[in-house]
Amino acid sequence: MIEGSAFVAAPLGGMTLAQLGAQVIRIDPVGGGPDLGRWPLAPSGSSLYWTGLNKSKLSVTLNFRAPEGRQLLHDLVTASGACGGIVLTNAVGQEWLSYSVLAGLRPDLIHLQVQGYRDGRAAVDYTVNAATGFPLITGPDGMNGPVNHVLPAWDVACGLYAAVGLLAAERRRYRTGAGSEITMALADVALAVAGHLGFLADAQISGSDRPRIGNHLYGGLGRDFQTADGERVMVVALTRRHFADLASVTGLTATFAELERRLQADFTDDGDRYRHRQVITALLEPWFAERGLADIERALGTTSVLWSRYQGFAELTSDDSLGKNPLLQQISQPGVGAVFAPLSPLVMDSLPAARPAPVLGADTEPVLTRLLGLTEADVQALAERGIVGVGSPR
Amino acid sequence: MIEGSAFVAAPLGGMTLAQLGAQVIRIDPVGGGPDLGRWPLAPSGSSLYWTGLNKSKLSVTLNFRAPEGRQLLHDLVTASGACGGIVLTNAVGQEWLSYSVLAGLRPDLIHLQVQGYRDGRAAVDYTVNAATGFPLITGPDGMNGPVNHVLPAWDVACGLYAAVGLLAAERRRYRTGAGSEITMALADVALAVAGHLGFLADAQISGSDRPRIGNHLYGGLGRDFQTADGERVMVVALTRRHFADLASVTGLTATFAELERRLQADFTDDGDRYRHRQVITALLEPWFAERGLADIERALGTTSVLWSRYQGFAELTSDDSLGKNPLLQQISQPGVGAVFAPLSPLVMDSLPAARPAPVLGADTEPVLTRLLGLTEADVQALAERGIVGVGSPR
Repeated sequence: MIEGSAFVAAPLGGMTLAQLGAQVIRIDPVGGGPDLGRWPLAPSGSSLYWTGLNKSKLSVTLNFRAPEGRQLLHDLVTASGACGGIVLTNAVGQEWLSYSVLAGLRPDLIHLQVQGYRDGRAAVDYTVNAATGFPLITGPDGMNGPVNHVLPAWDVACGLYAAVGLLAAERRRYRTGAGSEITMALADVALAVAGHLGFLADAQISGSDRPRIGNHLYGGLGRDFQTADGERVMVVALTRRHFADLASVTGLTATFAELERRLQADFTDDGDRYRHRQVITALLEPWFAERGLADIERALGTTSVLWSRYQGFAELTSDDSLGKNPLLQQISQPGVGAVFAPLSPLVMDSLPAARPAPVLGADTEPVLTRLLGLTEADVQALAERGIVGVGSPR
Repeated sequence: MIEGSAFVAAPLGGMTLAQLGAQVIRIDPVGGGPDLGRWPLAPSGSSLYWTGLNKSKLSVTLNFRAPEGRQLLHDLVTASGACGGIVLTNAVGQEWLSYSVLAGLRPDLIHLQVQGYRDGRAAVDYTVNAATGFPLITGPDGMNGPVNHVLPAWDVACGLYAAVGLLAAERRRYRTGAGSEITMALADVALAVAGHLGFLADAQISGSDRPRIGNHLYGGLGRDFQTADGERVMVVALTRRHFADLASVTGLTATFAELERRLQADFTDDGDRYRHRQVITALLEPWFAERGLADIERALGTTSVLWSRYQGFAELTSDDSLGKNPLLQQISQPGVGAVFAPLSPLVMDSLPAARPAPVLGADTEPVLTRLLGLTEADVQALAERGIVGVGSPR
């Protein structure tokens, strides 16, 4: 498939399929797109963001301002075989990548257009997120103003939905021969997910916003606790069994039973655990505050209670257990060096091995010679005239 | 397909496919699973969360403690036709739903097991998130301690990856006849996404955590601003064109040019815009603080600058424009009433119309009669003996 993309959503969509074995050719303008130097950077200046989101792809660079460059793109879309004719893009206003132009060349085209809003206006994760309602209920109770998320969750969801959409369309084409025009707006992804999780219906029915409850779990019992040795742990009792185990291990079974009587509450019900979260967690606090992490781990480890320690990225990546997780492969990324590269989290047989991101333009020559029948000399001549790029400026 | 699931990830995976036209039969224990009453709730007590995550599915309830109940499940897995033999589950330790048992009945089985950790231990979004590093860099600069996300982003990503995995496996089975055993750990989803976005490589190379920078956009220019009428807007200049437009509309082009000279910076480079974000955004603040939202909208609306107003869920769902977005359909959800139900954000032709979530167990009789050839009287007898459930306690 051809991916004409930048930033997170479309590149993640293409990479999700590439990591499952699809041949994904990322097309960029000669010299690279606007995301080529996006932070974080390696000491060399290579983008860890770009290389992270373009693993396992091929990179072809073309000069889209030249008619010959656009023609080469069109040749790639039409020539790329039975499993080809698939285009994923977040470019808006670039006619040569549009469904209407490309479907004229290949009627069974599958084309997925990622855009900001449904009407085609631009948006990014950070602006979409502002309008969702989440920033106003994130962060400490009593705080004013919005708290933005750091994980671009809407971009991530949009990229994965894109992979779903392409697979669904290819499934149909394989059975019926019919192509598909698919569009997806980042803002719609956010609305859909907020709706699926009940946030929209809740606000629509209640007419009010969910309260800002800090690190408490909404609608159940869960919160962070400080330990005697200065660590923090997130502890969740999602079911009645979790809660019974938590009460038992902390020696609070009788206390909670007495509390239930006095409050006329039923702590086997998660709604009641949530309503009384302040008093329940206040009673739990000393147990954590009086114990070091090792003791807590030993005690909770034998129960059903869900918990985890908070840690930062540096600690996470220095953790020995990470290197033992076959999800993460130590690869040699050109321009970066040895880094952890995650495979797809989908574990199934016959998946390809981890492959680094390409050097920008590194596949222009092999792709144009293999798929379009050009000679090396042809590609060299095109490169000299600035119609295609070969290799990278880095 | 058969979905034996609870909470967010597996149900979202099944619903993603159901909204694209798949027949998804959610199997629950008689009386419902642990997520049936999960908050938020409608005034009737029906869960807006459960109904949001199970739209467009069929609901069959079986007594898994009874051998006959487990046999009915096995019959459904083997009998469900050419596109059947697909099982999505997050149940761990329930042998009758396991790959090893079910693949013995149908060798071309596609089975996707969602679990907490790769080794099978349990985890939920909130505990996985604690270990990722994100909570320690979310929230206001200078704050101590973690800030949990409110959106269960890892569950959402896991559910969408599950839909990708099932489509990829079904693609292979259609071509080769081979089934697939797929497993996916929620913790691996979080690690994979953190890795794809460059967070892991950044920490691995630098040995340190990214700073907590409040609502600033990392590696570029973006932040929230207060307006004269008490609103807040998120403003992002991701490219040099965005920044030039922002400088121009705020009358700061010459000021920024002078600043670049004095700081020996280049604001056409997003790294430099990020390094000098404090002074750049301090210069921008008065422009926003002196204007009301309507003026800001008028001024920015003619530029490429990316921006959005912050709003809460209640305001979002009372917004007239929401009802005009064809993504959201007003449906009548049993037990809830009229609510906005989002379709899939993937817009393509021949998608099914919006369908509410089923009443728990409402499809036990039609599914068992249609797919397994039982009579209504058979199902009635099974229900009386507690082997299956019909209809809902609500």
